[in-house]
Amino acid sequence: MLRTIKRRLKSITPRIRRHTPPGAMPGTIKVRRDAHQPTIELIHYTNGNFEERPLNSADDVRPYLGAEGVTWINVEGLGDQAMLEQVGEMFGLHRLAMEDVVNVHQRAKVEEYDDHLFIVVRMLAGEEELKDEQLSIFLGQNFLITIQELPGDCLDPVRARLRKDRGRIRKVGPDYLCYAIIDAVVDAYFPIVDSRGEVLEDLDDAAPREHSHTFMRHLHSIRGELMMLRRAIRPLRDALVRLMPDPIDLFKPETQLYLRDCFDHVVQLMDLLDTYREMSSDLRDYHLSSINHRMNEIMKVLTIIATVFMPLSFITGVYGMNFNTELPGNMPELDIPYAYVVALLVMVGIATGLFAFFYRHGWLRMEDLGQGEDQHERE
Amino acid sequence: MLRTIKRRLKSITPRIRRHTPPGAMPGTIKVRRDAHQPTIELIHYTNGNFEERPLNSADDVRPYLGAEGVTWINVEGLGDQAMLEQVGEMFGLHRLAMEDVVNVHQRAKVEEYDDHLFIVVRMLAGEEELKDEQLSIFLGQNFLITIQELPGDCLDPVRARLRKDRGRIRKVGPDYLCYAIIDAVVDAYFPIVDSRGEVLEDLDDAAPREHSHTFMRHLHSIRGELMMLRRAIRPLRDALVRLMPDPIDLFKPETQLYLRDCFDHVVQLMDLLDTYREMSSDLRDYHLSSINHRMNEIMKVLTIIATVFMPLSFITGVYGMNFNTELPGNMPELDIPYAYVVALLVMVGIATGLFAFFYRHGWLRMEDLGQGEDQHERE
Amino acid sequence: MLRTIKRRLKSITPRIRRHTPPGAMPGTIKVRRDAHQPTIELIHYTNGNFEERPLNSADDVRPYLGAEGVTWINVEGLGDQAMLEQVGEMFGLHRLAMEDVVNVHQRAKVEEYDDHLFIVVRMLAGEEELKDEQLSIFLGQNFLITIQELPGDCLDPVRARLRKDRGRIRKVGPDYLCYAIIDAVVDAYFPIVDSRGEVLEDLDDAAPREHSHTFMRHLHSIRGELMMLRRAIRPLRDALVRLMPDPIDLFKPETQLYLRDCFDHVVQLMDLLDTYREMSSDLRDYHLSSINHRMNEIMKVLTIIATVFMPLSFITGVYGMNFNTELPGNMPELDIPYAYVVALLVMVGIATGLFAFFYRHGWLRMEDLGQGEDQHERE
Amino acid sequence: MLRTIKRRLKSITPRIRRHTPPGAMPGTIKVRRDAHQPTIELIHYTNGNFEERPLNSADDVRPYLGAEGVTWINVEGLGDQAMLEQVGEMFGLHRLAMEDVVNVHQRAKVEEYDDHLFIVVRMLAGEEELKDEQLSIFLGQNFLITIQELPGDCLDPVRARLRKDRGRIRKVGPDYLCYAIIDAVVDAYFPIVDSRGEVLEDLDDAAPREHSHTFMRHLHSIRGELMMLRRAIRPLRDALVRLMPDPIDLFKPETQLYLRDCFDHVVQLMDLLDTYREMSSDLRDYHLSSINHRMNEIMKVLTIIATVFMPLSFITGVYGMNFNTELPGNMPELDIPYAYVVALLVMVGIATGLFAFFYRHGWLRMEDLGQGEDQHERE
Amino acid sequence: MLRTIKRRLKSITPRIRRHTPPGAMPGTIKVRRDAHQPTIELIHYTNGNFEERPLNSADDVRPYLGAEGVTWINVEGLGDQAMLEQVGEMFGLHRLAMEDVVNVHQRAKVEEYDDHLFIVVRMLAGEEELKDEQLSIFLGQNFLITIQELPGDCLDPVRARLRKDRGRIRKVGPDYLCYAIIDAVVDAYFPIVDSRGEVLEDLDDAAPREHSHTFMRHLHSIRGELMMLRRAIRPLRDALVRLMPDPIDLFKPETQLYLRDCFDHVVQLMDLLDTYREMSSDLRDYHLSSINHRMNEIMKVLTIIATVFMPLSFITGVYGMNFNTELPGNMPELDIPYAYVVALLVMVGIATGLFAFFYRHGWLRMEDLGQGEDQHERE
Repeated sequence: MLRTIKRRLKSITPRIRRHTPPGAMPGTIKVRRDAHQPTIELIHYTNGNFEERPLNSADDVRPYLGAEGVTWINVEGLGDQAMLEQVGEMFGLHRLAMEDVVNVHQRAKVEEYDDHLFIVVRMLAGEEELKDEQLSIFLGQNFLITIQELPGDCLDPVRARLRKDRGRIRKVGPDYLCYAIIDAVVDAYFPIVDSRGEVLEDLDDAAPREHSHTFMRHLHSIRGELMMLRRAIRPLRDALVRLMPDPIDLFKPETQLYLRDCFDHVVQLMDLLDTYREMSSDLRDYHLSSINHRMNEIMKVLTIIATVFMPLSFITGVYGMNFNTELPGNMPELDIPYAYVVALLVMVGIATGLFAFFYRHGWLRMEDLGQGEDQHERE
Repeated sequence: MLRTIKRRLKSITPRIRRHTPPGAMPGTIKVRRDAHQPTIELIHYTNGNFEERPLNSADDVRPYLGAEGVTWINVEGLGDQAMLEQVGEMFGLHRLAMEDVVNVHQRAKVEEYDDHLFIVVRMLAGEEELKDEQLSIFLGQNFLITIQELPGDCLDPVRARLRKDRGRIRKVGPDYLCYAIIDAVVDAYFPIVDSRGEVLEDLDDAAPREHSHTFMRHLHSIRGELMMLRRAIRPLRDALVRLMPDPIDLFKPETQLYLRDCFDHVVQLMDLLDTYREMSSDLRDYHLSSINHRMNEIMKVLTIIATVFMPLSFITGVYGMNFNTELPGNMPELDIPYAYVVALLVMVGIATGLFAFFYRHGWLRMEDLGQGEDQHERE
Repeated sequence: MLRTIKRRLKSITPRIRRHTPPGAMPGTIKVRRDAHQPTIELIHYTNGNFEERPLNSADDVRPYLGAEGVTWINVEGLGDQAMLEQVGEMFGLHRLAMEDVVNVHQRAKVEEYDDHLFIVVRMLAGEEELKDEQLSIFLGQNFLITIQELPGDCLDPVRARLRKDRGRIRKVGPDYLCYAIIDAVVDAYFPIVDSRGEVLEDLDDAAPREHSHTFMRHLHSIRGELMMLRRAIRPLRDALVRLMPDPIDLFKPETQLYLRDCFDHVVQLMDLLDTYREMSSDLRDYHLSSINHRMNEIMKVLTIIATVFMPLSFITGVYGMNFNTELPGNMPELDIPYAYVVALLVMVGIATGLFAFFYRHGWLRMEDLGQGEDQHERE
Repeated sequence: MLRTIKRRLKSITPRIRRHTPPGAMPGTIKVRRDAHQPTIELIHYTNGNFEERPLNSADDVRPYLGAEGVTWINVEGLGDQAMLEQVGEMFGLHRLAMEDVVNVHQRAKVEEYDDHLFIVVRMLAGEEELKDEQLSIFLGQNFLITIQELPGDCLDPVRARLRKDRGRIRKVGPDYLCYAIIDAVVDAYFPIVDSRGEVLEDLDDAAPREHSHTFMRHLHSIRGELMMLRRAIRPLRDALVRLMPDPIDLFKPETQLYLRDCFDHVVQLMDLLDTYREMSSDLRDYHLSSINHRMNEIMKVLTIIATVFMPLSFITGVYGMNFNTELPGNMPELDIPYAYVVALLVMVGIATGLFAFFYRHGWLRMEDLGQGEDQHERE
Repeated sequence: MLRTIKRRLKSITPRIRRHTPPGAMPGTIKVRRDAHQPTIELIHYTNGNFEERPLNSADDVRPYLGAEGVTWINVEGLGDQAMLEQVGEMFGLHRLAMEDVVNVHQRAKVEEYDDHLFIVVRMLAGEEELKDEQLSIFLGQNFLITIQELPGDCLDPVRARLRKDRGRIRKVGPDYLCYAIIDAVVDAYFPIVDSRGEVLEDLDDAAPREHSHTFMRHLHSIRGELMMLRRAIRPLRDALVRLMPDPIDLFKPETQLYLRDCFDHVVQLMDLLDTYREMSSDLRDYHLSSINHRMNEIMKVLTIIATVFMPLSFITGVYGMNFNTELPGNMPELDIPYAYVVALLVMVGIATGLFAFFYRHGWLRMEDLGQGEDQHERE
């Protein structure tokens, strides 16, 4: 009975609510009123050194500009327009890109500027209820800036690897860090997509017997989520394709191998989502044909009942008529001994004949009438 | 109950009503009889200077021909054939392009001529009821001509930026002005598309319980509008692709970055429209399965009623027959004390048995019968 | 009530009835027995000169072979094999092309030979009933040959422009004439496609209330016609693409601009046909859901009637039974004063209760039952 | 009544029954046990000479190896493994190609080897029942080998042209012969495809009135055949594309023109098959909506009958009750003169009122109830 | 009655259960707890020599490193992380590839590294129930490593050919061995796909008469399997395309010919799967229309019964009313001799008239009512 689905059944209609007014000057950075106040976190490392600390203001970044090693600025929250403009100015980020940072409905994409890349990915969360956040990444020669809508992310494993100096992450440049972040985001898609697969498995199991209303609402909801997931993931595939022969040579050939691996994961996910989408269509058709079939069976029951009892009731009606039986020709059979018994036998005969007719036409196989739980076991 | 949809439910069938007769000489400029009388507006600016004034006739343009700076001629209304021909001649615009200016069913497109580009975009308006107007743009080395079907447009923010000299708009050439106009048109698409998303959200909410006729009419209407929007926006995407490696080098590399941003917006809109279209299909299927399901339930009620009462009525019919009970074998049970009570008990027993049968087959779960408003809350 | 559709409702199944027998030698010119006897018309013009006259036989063409200026031979009717072969021979036309001229089921196409192009376009006619004719065009260095299946065509505007020397048509070569002919054919498509849009508009209007049988027949018929139109027009688009970077340089760059315009018209038509096709699918779904909905409502009426009257009839049946009321326990209520009134009141109570039940479940909103004409106005 | 369809209604599920065991050495030639014993036929011609004779064994081919002119070996039947291997060895045919010759489920394809081409086409037959045979062609510098599954083919016109030296066939090389054979195979597709169009025409005619079961079986059968035809013909299109800029230069430029013509025929067929497929979908939808519509009408009849007679029967039931009329309040109306007439009039009034209600709601237009043959004429 | 389907009807929802935790360091080799303990098998051969033996540990491979001839290491089971890492290190396999070896949900793919290729193919089994296993292949200059999830594979024919030195397999390099393995895997797909074709054949046969519930479950199950098969096979096609102009030149031109043959087989399978998928859709539509049709027939029976008996019962009801016949105007017909007979004749007349009405409207052709087995034969 679809035990695994506990999440609220609500559909998500994607909307683009730009807060830059139509016709505004391109490159306008206008923060939303309800945006989170940002916190800034800085990680700086060279091959030997590692430093991690929160920053009070964008000014604190200045000492690290142009310093050796890799500087990673992570901003969580978009509520401070001045700060965002300051960061953009310090690192020479293009205004059009900064505008996209605050308009958080961007599709995943890669844009190349003179000396930096601007990358947008969608950070998904929620095995129960789907959540969707924009992660903007600026990759420069020796810096990486990530800007998120909300506090909290899926990048902790990356930070842990940086801190513990595990693997090659601290030995190589910001391009590898950028890859590691994208990879962490993609890795977080897997349990989300997989949980939808689990629901589909349950629905597939429930399709032929589940209560129709419940079934269709779950299916409708899961289809909506699959569409949302596809909307989030597919543009990332195209973006990664553009990164692979990287147009401004920020990614080293070595890191390209890793990007290819990440691309491979995204393709796997897309393939799975397409399969799920197709499966859900098949499920819907299967379920609808079950409903149709059941309707058919109900109609048969109704028709059998009506067909058997209507003639019988007609006969009783005939003998319930009040013709004056003392006149000749008026219902003389009422005055014959055992006529009642004969009438009953005739009625039994008619009923038997009709049932035999229905049996021979296969209408009496009614195994599929019920929708109770036990019925499935019996099959 | 679909409160947000107030707009008239009318579908829009696109039609091409060419007023150039079939087989006419190509390049024929033939204005429609009911076309608006045009007004001409001139904006001329150099980096330091700004002039804006209405013109009485096309002749007043002559002083600006070849002048330094950027000349923007804006014509609103297509009712004056002579004037249009004069403008075309003064700026050396190709006759085939001028023919397309007055045949206002063009798809968005870019056509390159020797020394000017001809660009068509569709100007949409109306969050309630969709309106569609053709905006023809000619971009030359130092001029920009925009020709509109009707008075009124969405270009006021651009004019405001020009007047106030905000941003870079007055410092750069007509290519940037051209971009700014296209961008303003695209920006105006966002609230229009978004309002359709709002309707879909309401429909999704209403799908399982809404009165079917109303629901389907709204869905049909919204599908028609989505198709119209797609028809208007998709060709623009292709046109922008052609502009980006601009074939006759009117767009400076710097402006190309901005065009890319504009292209990105159009892709976002297309992506959203495709999602909406797919969502509306899903909604239809969901709604139809709800109807099917409800029909199923109604049939069950009918069948239960008929199945329970038909045998009972048959029994009453039997005891309503007028056989002569004084003869042997004719309904002796009528003359037995308490036979009536027994008969009633038998009938209660039959009804109980049939209900038990239906209960065991799951027919008595009738939660989904109603379509009243309260029903949704209960779930 | 679908007033605009007066044309006969017949569907057109495309068939290829080759009259060249299977396995015949390629290049076999075999005219159909029922083909029209051809008439030949010659137009010859140089920049200064213009001559137009009917020819009695293909031999009369000889004086014009290789003459300065442009020679346009127009053949209407395919009934004379010898004449066709003679024409082919005089102008050096390839036998494979000549075979396609008489096998009149060709798709629009362009084939290049050593020194001439072979172009096939479909000439459509009939806003009421669709007619389809093959127009074969041979374009050489200084000649143009058009061969039609039947007398009568849509090329009169072209002839008129030639006679009156309007525009540039007599100043330029046969390539422009070829363009002018193709353009005239394409222009003739517009009213044909547009009339189908008009029908769709009417159908859209009629969808929720029209008599189903009539509606579906009209929709089926219009879908068939849209398919036919697409079949005729789409290959032309591909053919024009091949003409535009013309492989054997018969089209001058100047004329290429005009071809691009013509291509643009064809793309507009294809776009419109695709929209119409999609609209007709939507209409069908909308209409079917209306039918479904109405069936639902009918079932509700039936169920309400049966549910209300079956228990009432059962009660009357009970009191119509003939138990001997003189014995104890047998229907004593029959002998109570005013029991009849009580019974009637009970029945009224039951009916009221059932109606209340249905009302609370929303079954009594029956606004959509009717399909009469007035019903639409009321909404 | 679908007179034209006489062929057996059986569907054809394509299966690949490889007789080479899985994992066998590639290039294994293993003939099927039930394969036909082969016959070998040799045709040898130079420009002046022509020789045609049956061969007893593959050895008889040796004298012709390397001889001037064109040698065409035609093998019908795959039952002799030794002979096939011998032929393959003599002409240096690749073992992988020879393996495909005996595994007769190949799709149409072209494979180039060092000095020969291997071409597979599907030879179809049967306007009534579809038959499908593999024709393998090896084209070398001066030889052509054709190997067929079964005796009998559609190449007799080619042989006739060779014998009578009609056209250019004996003057040119084996490439033209190869083209002529492929062209003969393609020409044989036309009547087969066309006969399916004829059936569709009949079905279209029968759609709104034909008995549903019969109609759907024919439609299902025709859809299966269209799918089979598309499966056979589409790969041929791709194969011809590969032949046209022939990779190993066996086809002379002159013959390429002929191949293009043949390619054109295949494209026509594909276009027609796609149209037929789409038409059959439309037909199914049209037919299903007809069924739906008829169901609707039947439901209306049922509902009208029930709605009219149930209240009337209830009234007769009321006056059939046996309340003791001597007591006050118990059915005093039974003892009023002409009460019966009044009751009848009331009932007539009720029936009339209900019919009026239904008429005003448009339920009484029942023109579409019947499915008899005459009904179509009346429309 | 669908005898051929004996396999369990369970659907397979593909899931990706990565056991590498999200965000883990790329290149992490983490074996699953329930993975099989591996066995290692070594085959080494030169043109003259052949050696085959099981290995106890990865160390035993060392002597063969860099040895002349071809070394094939086959590992069955993924349960030993240390061993896998050791193998990877000895042969210089990339860590990202090794990670994919243990994450066994990879799609078929080819990845090129500096001096080796990494190839993944899906090994399918099970004509009754589909099983799916990952086979990872590393191809180097003189070695081939295959790593499988589970013991048992379809490569025995390849081993047999190696042992018996049949064909060219021992004379050529590891590229041919790699081809031979892929070819054996693809050959094993054929009986699997073919068995699904057999089921479809049975379903097609059963479509018009089979019990709906059973039919739809089988069809749903087969559609799920076809989707799984397509998911396994399609990526292999793309992978083979990448191998054919092999990017790092490990495949000799001669072996490329064989790969092309293998690619051809995969295309055949894909083509067949697409056909099957389309056939199953057609089957579903066909079956659903059969159900619809039968419902129609049932409704007709119900309507005929109700229409005939309701008026008759009404008449008997009228004459069962208890009006006081001694008063004038109250049912005088009850006291007329032979009135009963007249009433019966009137009722027979009404019934006859109604049947005639239905007959003329074609409702009485009820050939399709039954669903019994015998019915099909009769047609």
